[in-house]
Amino acid sequence: MNLERPYYAVIFTNTRTDVDKGYAEMAEQMELLAREQPGYLGFESARDGLGISVSYWKDQKSIADWKSQLDHQMAQQQGIKEWYSWYKVRVCLVEREYEFHKEP
Amino acid sequence: MNLERPYYAVIFTNTRTDVDKGYAEMAEQMELLAREQPGYLGFESARDGLGISVSYWKDQKSIADWKSQLDHQMAQQQGIKEWYSWYKVRVCLVEREYEFHKEP
Repeated sequence: MNLERPYYAVIFTNTRTDVDKGYAEMAEQMELLAREQPGYLGFESARDGLGISVSYWKDQKSIADWKSQLDHQMAQQQGIKEWYSWYKVRVCLVEREYEFHKEP
Repeated sequence: MNLERPYYAVIFTNTRTDVDKGYAEMAEQMELLAREQPGYLGFESARDGLGISVSYWKDQKSIADWKSQLDHQMAQQQGIKEWYSWYKVRVCLVEREYEFHKEP
């Protein structure tokens, strides 16, 4: 992912409940929904106990549009709050970046 | 972690090599070094294949001071590049945030 700055990162940090029913489907749907949105640039995710997902976006408007789609979709579901005991969302402007690739 | 905005997030995304020698000690040292720095606000980390670590800082100066300490320390070590096949660092301004806690 080599992107033109400025762009935005949404950091979603979370801990899960022990409710698994529907979780995998919801997570997959959320990622698909993001990929279809205008302004979507990328997605990275990791979990070991704590989960951290970071999605990348062209601008604030793309994020607002995605969130409104997400809220709409969530309202039709059991509620995302079944699956998470805690989460925090941070919307961030990427100001600088650098990257390292090991020579093969 | 309830912080006064604005503050900064440093997103460190990475994949590891299969070199384990010294890695755990280095990772521990890096976290200790961060905690001792003025302007340090917090740290979150997860890995499953992809590793994502996010550190939080009061301002750009805190990050620059931490990086210069880190570079100095790394120069005395085997080199951080032994342990990572790829990494990317993004310095981000946190513009908005919201949080959810499940009722007990």
